[in-house]
Parts: sequence; C-alpha cells; structure tokens
Amino acid sequence: MAIKLYDLAGAEAARRFSPYCWRTRMALAHKGLAVETIPWRFSDKQVIAPYDRVPVIVDGEQKIGDSWVIADHLEKAYPDRPSLFEGSGGRALSLLVNSWADNVMLPGMIRFALLDIYRHLDERDKPYFRTSREARLGTTLEEFSADRERHLPAFRQSLEFVRRTLKVQNFLGGDHPLYADYIVFGGFQWARAISPFQLLEPSDPLAQWRERMLDCFDGLARRAPGYPV
Amino acid sequence: MAIKLYDLAGAEAARRFSPYCWRTRMALAHKGLAVETIPWRFSDKQVIAPYDRVPVIVDGEQKIGDSWVIADHLEKAYPDRPSLFEGSGGRALSLLVNSWADNVMLPGMIRFALLDIYRHLDERDKPYFRTSREARLGTTLEEFSADRERHLPAFRQSLEFVRRTLKVQNFLGGDHPLYADYIVFGGFQWARAISPFQLLEPSDPLAQWRERMLDCFDGLARRAPGYPV
Repeated sequence: MAIKLYDLAGAEAARRFSPYCWRTRMALAHKGLAVETIPWRFSDKQVIAPYDRVPVIVDGEQKIGDSWVIADHLEKAYPDRPSLFEGSGGRALSLLVNSWADNVMLPGMIRFALLDIYRHLDERDKPYFRTSREARLGTTLEEFSADRERHLPAFRQSLEFVRRTLKVQNFLGGDHPLYADYIVFGGFQWARAISPFQLLEPSDPLAQWRERMLDCFDGLARRAPGYPV
Repeated sequence: MAIKLYDLAGAEAARRFSPYCWRTRMALAHKGLAVETIPWRFSDKQVIAPYDRVPVIVDGEQKIGDSWVIADHLEKAYPDRPSLFEGSGGRALSLLVNSWADNVMLPGMIRFALLDIYRHLDERDKPYFRTSREARLGTTLEEFSADRERHLPAFRQSLEFVRRTLKVQNFLGGDHPLYADYIVFGGFQWARAISPFQLLEPSDPLAQWRERMLDCFDGLARRAPGYPV
C-alpha cells in the first residue's frame, strides 16, 4: 500500500510548494517507495490532527509528522532501501544542515517568495495566511516584498559556503544526493513552484546543482508545476 | 614513529593558536596517533615548503598540508582507528561544515581575537602579521577591533543553528565527537588560546558543548595554554 503524504497545495491542486514537503517527497523517491500525495491547504487542519502542519505521512498504521522525524522513520523502517544518510556521521550532520536550512536559508528566502505564495493560495487560505504572516513580520506582505532586489546579493552571499562545497563535489552528499541535498533543495523547489523571481544566476554552481536535483528520479521535481529557473 | 605536526605558536612556544592546527591536533588524538608538535611561526616558511601555511604533518615519508587533506589522509591511512567521519555521508557533510567554518564562522570570529593575536606573536612575526592583515582589512588592527562588543550579538546569532543542533545531540557528530566537531571547536580553541574576550555566555548550549570538547582526550585542549572561557 502506498504511503500517503499530505502535501501543501495552492489554488491549483497540482502546485506543491512546501519546502518541508519537498524534503519528504524526495526522500520517499530516494527510498523508492510508492506515494500517494494528498493536496492539503492551511484550512484543512483537522485531517492531519494531532499535527497542525505538513508534511504528515500515513505509513500503514502510523501517522507521522515533521519532515525530520519522517526521514528518520523512513531510514529505520526501510533499512534495505538506499540510505538517506549513509552512516551515523551523515545522520548527525544532516540534523545540522536541517537546522541551518530552517534557521538561516528559509528565513533568508522568504522575502523573495512570500507575496508570490499569497497569490497562488486557495481563496480559503488567503485570509489566514495574510493575517498570520503580517503579525509575524510586523508589516504587510506587499511592504515586506517591495525591495526584494536589494536583499538578493546578501542572500546569494549567505550561500557561499554551500557553493564552495558544490565546486568540490556534485552533491552535498558527495557523488550522489543524500537527505542533506533534499533539505536544501526543498527551499529552491518551494521558490520555483510559486515564484518567477530569479534567485540564482544560471552560471552559479548552486544553480547547476539545482539542475542536477531537478533531474533526479526521472525529473520528479522538474515535472511538478513551477516557473522556469 | 610519531607523526610530526608543524603547529602555529606565539612568542611563548607552548601557546598554540591556529584554528586549523587544532582541527588536526584533535583529529590525531581521535585516531589515537602519537604526535610530536613543532612550534612554528609565520616567518618559518622554508621548513614547511612546498606549503606556506600550517598545519603541515610529516607522516613517515609523506609531508601533507591543509587540515582537510590531512583529515582525509588520516582516515584513509588508519582505517582501523576510530573514524573521523563515520560513513561516506559524514565525510561529504563534514566538507560542508569545513566550508561554513572557513567562510562564515572564522571570518565572524576574527574581529574579537585579532588584536589579541598580535599581542601574543613572536616579535619576528609582528611586522608581517600587521602589514598583511591591515592590507586585507583596509584598516588598522586597533581600529578593526575597537568596537568588537557591538558585533557580539550578531556573531552569537550566526551560531544559532549550531546551538539548536546541540540542544538535540551532545556533539555535532551525534553522541560523540567527530571531525565536524573538531572543525568548529578549532575556532573556539583559537580564540581561547589568545584572547580573554568572552565569546559565549556560560549558559549557552554552545559553551556547554565547548566544555565537553575541552574534556576530550583527557583534557588535551584544556591543558593547552589559554584563557579561562
């Protein structure tokens, strides 16, 4: 029986744009596990209870939330499938990468994508999204996004250490992608799904890595609705 | 025969303050390898040729420079000793941590330590150090360090993702230290060796991790000359 994944969707059900859900989606593909994705909107809280945000998976009898916990579950439950971490050192350091992505990369990215997210939301979700985000930001979505161009050089510079790593090896995981790649890629796929804004120059080694990620699993992420990058 | 390590020293030969040499020193201890450290000053370029900076090790017939290359060498040459990476995923992600430390953490730390480094240098090294660093910074050592207090909150915030990881696991490597821990610790041990400036609050989970690192290998780093942290 396929694993079910509650996957954040926009007004258009096929447009999936949660950076965290993309981590899970890629991890499931890495493990070669069949998945049935269920489009989920912010207003559908009850179907994922006791969790209140996605990703949430249903694997047999188990309902599991939080992308990191899900990755850990998949690694333990399917030890004969390709490993997401390749060793205990890889698992421990993937948690560090997860923490960096959640605390540095995604907050640094959100300015470029926030207003575009709003535009793609289901009408039911728009009031919740605007109210909750504007309370957190202390300004309107429009104001927050107005001068995004000005923030682009600092954002690109914040990725310099990742870029330098990708000049030495093709993936963060080495010569093939591991869960750490999916963590970071989730952010770029989120942006790609809902925004035409160009985060990276095409010549950037990070953009070239993103192309390799888009090619993974027969173009799983590339085939998903999104904007050209 | 013990491995030789050329190790950056101050006017006082026992004071070792290179963040990169500390990575190697801790890696050698992790592998349980005997080491003979040779105090080295910036003006001793010829003894480490063809390299021009430390760490440089001499392991039998091989002379090897660059802390990352040395770690890789130790892992390959001594596979029966405790692993520095614990798997191919751990090695690949350690390179990412290395890149972060070199490009983000150490440049963020240098303001707090630079003038104190100068004060501890051998007299022969002082003119070289002042000239080369002031050319790079575009200002005097004194000017650069004058308002270091003002930069402290941003520096501490830049480590937030590391701090959060260390709330979940005792070491970056998981339940025991791996090379990634030595990479990050090298920066703190560098600061501790030459500066009384308090980089972290004692209650900071990062400071508590640093205590655990100072305890490693019978207090190897704690016994080295330095300031209380």
